[in-house]
Amino acid sequence: QLVDAVIGVLAAPAQQPLQGVKVTITAGPTREAIDPVRYISNHSSGKMGYALATAAAALGADVTLISGPVQLATPTGVTRIDVTTAEQMYVSSMQQASNSDIFIGCAAVADFRVAALASQKIKKTADNDGLTLQLVKNPDIIASVAAMSAQRPFTVGFAAETEKVAEYARQKLQKKNLNLICANDVSDPALGFNSEQNAITVYSTTAEFALGQRSKTDLAQALISLIYEQYQHEKKH
Amino acid sequence: QLVDAVIGVLAAPAQQPLQGVKVTITAGPTREAIDPVRYISNHSSGKMGYALATAAAALGADVTLISGPVQLATPTGVTRIDVTTAEQMYVSSMQQASNSDIFIGCAAVADFRVAALASQKIKKTADNDGLTLQLVKNPDIIASVAAMSAQRPFTVGFAAETEKVAEYARQKLQKKNLNLICANDVSDPALGFNSEQNAITVYSTTAEFALGQRSKTDLAQALISLIYEQYQHEKKH
Repeated sequence: QLVDAVIGVLAAPAQQPLQGVKVTITAGPTREAIDPVRYISNHSSGKMGYALATAAAALGADVTLISGPVQLATPTGVTRIDVTTAEQMYVSSMQQASNSDIFIGCAAVADFRVAALASQKIKKTADNDGLTLQLVKNPDIIASVAAMSAQRPFTVGFAAETEKVAEYARQKLQKKNLNLICANDVSDPALGFNSEQNAITVYSTTAEFALGQRSKTDLAQALISLIYEQYQHEKKH
Repeated sequence: QLVDAVIGVLAAPAQQPLQGVKVTITAGPTREAIDPVRYISNHSSGKMGYALATAAAALGADVTLISGPVQLATPTGVTRIDVTTAEQMYVSSMQQASNSDIFIGCAAVADFRVAALASQKIKKTADNDGLTLQLVKNPDIIASVAAMSAQRPFTVGFAAETEKVAEYARQKLQKKNLNLICANDVSDPALGFNSEQNAITVYSTTAEFALGQRSKTDLAQALISLIYEQYQHEKKH
């Protein structure tokens, strides 16, 4: 009897509430070339986005991960699209978004790129004591996804801030017309970029949810559950 | 008799011609902060500098490796000093150089840093369609080492160029008063940054040595032998 019961448990399908749900996640930094040798980037390791992709896939979702340059293995069962620049991530995101139920913008996308990319390495010469880099704005990926008029996915943004975290997060939520925004304070070296732990507060237009400090794996599982719950709630109304 | 002979070979000291020679090597990129989140860097992986450190240590040298941020393990028997910015690498290099017989500047040091580092993340706002970054020159590490008036080490520089490789390399050799310069063309994606293979031409004021395409490990061994040979030759004259 015991043997049968054990087999029964092992053979039971895992709980996969997100079966059939299409989730697109962006992760990592983007990298904006200055010349063939130099670039501008940021401290995103991609760990949070990759943990979200892993958690969503484990719950049965059909996950596409649009990834900037990171040192991470592709999570099992996840479709990965590699990009380098914000413009490449924008094109890929807009392609995927119209075919997604949920879009999570976890990448640390460069806000600016170099206005005039140098085709050859910029030389340091005796007469240039300095260098002026003119930067122009990159497309705003998460705002563009949230502004889609047809087939708009449930749109979740991230705000990595070093000050006034709640204030800036609420501003972004409203201005970019997001469904949810996940805010974290990257000025704390124990949390955020490159660390193993993180703490996040999630804001909707009507509520806020505090997910206290824990591993990025645990946090990703809690976040995916929360996002899915809010997505379901939104669909009913 | 055979057993004795084998033991004799195993017990013989390895060939360590660089025993007692102090070698300092810089490796990897440097990273110059724009604000707490963003930075300027370059595509150096550190592989070539780490391979040089490994090769020099295997030949018995006392090796110090001054390393920018890379994803590489410290070679066995090598003393590693981690730095992030060009200014940090400069300070560490000047400290080590006066105590070195040979100084090899293999790092891709940022020529410029941001003039005014922002203490908080620079916000993208509706009224800043662009951003102007004012950059200032970093100290020239290899030229400063080569300009030392006392205890100057035999100084070897690198030139990673995308065009006019030989011309720029010879200019650097002369202008910076180096003993040798190792030039490679990083415009070829099969060579240089992040690749496993490399090809280098070494210039002295009187000669040039072409080391054709091979693995960075093989190239490092050939380079260390060549550098040591030239260092010995210099000492005699």
